[in-house]
Amino acid sequence: MSPFAKNKSGSVAALGEEKLIALIRRWLGAVSPPAPFGIGDDCAVLPATGARQLITTDPVIYGRHFDDATPPAAVGAKLLKRNLSDLAAMGAQPTAAVLSITLDPRVSVRWLEQFYRGLAATSRRWRVRIVGGDLTQAKNFVGAYLTLLGRATGPRIVTRTGARPGDAIYVTGQLGGSQLGHHWRFTPRLAEGAWLAQQSAVRAMMDVSDGLAKDLRALTPPGAKPAIDATAVPVSAAARRLAAHTKKTPLRHALCDGEDYEIVFALARTADRATFEKSWLHAFPRTRLTRIGQFVRAGKLPADAINFDDYHGYEHLKG
Amino acid sequence: MSPFAKNKSGSVAALGEEKLIALIRRWLGAVSPPAPFGIGDDCAVLPATGARQLITTDPVIYGRHFDDATPPAAVGAKLLKRNLSDLAAMGAQPTAAVLSITLDPRVSVRWLEQFYRGLAATSRRWRVRIVGGDLTQAKNFVGAYLTLLGRATGPRIVTRTGARPGDAIYVTGQLGGSQLGHHWRFTPRLAEGAWLAQQSAVRAMMDVSDGLAKDLRALTPPGAKPAIDATAVPVSAAARRLAAHTKKTPLRHALCDGEDYEIVFALARTADRATFEKSWLHAFPRTRLTRIGQFVRAGKLPADAINFDDYHGYEHLKG
Repeated sequence: MSPFAKNKSGSVAALGEEKLIALIRRWLGAVSPPAPFGIGDDCAVLPATGARQLITTDPVIYGRHFDDATPPAAVGAKLLKRNLSDLAAMGAQPTAAVLSITLDPRVSVRWLEQFYRGLAATSRRWRVRIVGGDLTQAKNFVGAYLTLLGRATGPRIVTRTGARPGDAIYVTGQLGGSQLGHHWRFTPRLAEGAWLAQQSAVRAMMDVSDGLAKDLRALTPPGAKPAIDATAVPVSAAARRLAAHTKKTPLRHALCDGEDYEIVFALARTADRATFEKSWLHAFPRTRLTRIGQFVRAGKLPADAINFDDYHGYEHLKG
Repeated sequence: MSPFAKNKSGSVAALGEEKLIALIRRWLGAVSPPAPFGIGDDCAVLPATGARQLITTDPVIYGRHFDDATPPAAVGAKLLKRNLSDLAAMGAQPTAAVLSITLDPRVSVRWLEQFYRGLAATSRRWRVRIVGGDLTQAKNFVGAYLTLLGRATGPRIVTRTGARPGDAIYVTGQLGGSQLGHHWRFTPRLAEGAWLAQQSAVRAMMDVSDGLAKDLRALTPPGAKPAIDATAVPVSAAARRLAAHTKKTPLRHALCDGEDYEIVFALARTADRATFEKSWLHAFPRTRLTRIGQFVRAGKLPADAINFDDYHGYEHLKG
């Protein structure tokens, strides 16, 4: 569905700011608390947390993240889920969000309603309150910028640093070919992230959003390399389907495509892997977990490990 | 200065994402704490506050808020100051911010450096940490979206609601003609907002960003009207200068222009105005404070009060 109205009468500009904000509050419903705890004052007031918080921000932009073929409810849902995946990657759960939206005046009210209803449904599902935002007009642009707050689900917040040579590398789910639909349909790994943060043997963790080939670099300890067994990488069926059309290998899609929204983590070499994997299976019988390799000291890379100089993830700036 | 590079070699796309992020961290300097408390992990970790927090979000967009004539450092400074003004309006002080930036690949590194240096200088001035963000590419668009967190400076957070008929209406500074330069140069009224929040007689407060004519509506209690004395409105010299060219009256500029970033508030009718004004003068000898009228019951509006049906503030959505 195109974000632009066919007739001026169906546009946000025809409706006007005041009525649009009233509608947005209606579309968000119970997800949007009354001011000053939500939309309608200079700032939103948030309750004290008493503990450390987490914050992350990611947008969805017309022509970049979605187009005329995308159902607007899926755009609203993905906006929140992208950010939820970042919280999941540190073992946190969401609390509240603010949304800054920039609209061409020709954007249709119908499109926007479905966008907000998709956002609201996803917010209810994951218990996020949308507490504030901003509405700005710009020419030929439709973009929504969400900032999400969260809190730790336990005593630990797991960062990207902390892995050591010898640690095993695991990844959830399957990788590659996300553009065929997974990037809309994925479930953020909040439950899995929270569980992993409780396991003291999980030393470092992040989400796979720019492709494993790129993201693994951030998890790799100084002086080490990831020794990944190409045959162990959980290549998705979508990656195989896509490869049939692209002349690339399914493995390349799995390592480079990005938008997997899975979790990759390092398990301490001293941990009992069999027990850990059994506990995982008990906790998440339907979420695949794969040990794809381990971190080794640079110079000790096995000859048959994937050479990541040949694989690159998603670049956010390209000429 | 144009945000676009003359030669491809000076563009952000030529530099690439990784180097650009490294530069951004250098430009921000001490304003950007190390991960996981700043840029570089899936989320940023914020220390516990133990008290209520405030959150607000506002962008700056090329073609909307700035153009080729704007010094990029002023754009970066204004992005933060717009958000600071929202905190000031509730009596709060800033703590941390995240910045989501969307860039056409042709944006020049030089422009961006000055933007970030302007943001960093303003962040140092007001003790804000830039703890995280996102970098996304889009065609023909340059926009920066900041979300700012803050905390109350005392036991009270002053909202827009709470004024009653009979309360006096005050405004800081002078109004109108902001487009002639004030919207870049203004100092967010953080000190004044914090002081006002300590005065129990200050019942409701907000910042003047869309024009007093529009913003006052949000401060007006149900069943009441603002009775504003036109001769009391502090019309700025800029509003008068502008009026010489626009055929509008200076008063209209003062009421409708927007971007004043002043504070308007209601003082309880039971308060001793003379004592209050004297305390203000002692606390802020250089910040003008003007009593411009009072809230009256609807139907009791004096004949010589400004008729706000004739004045409209800034509309954020126009066809």
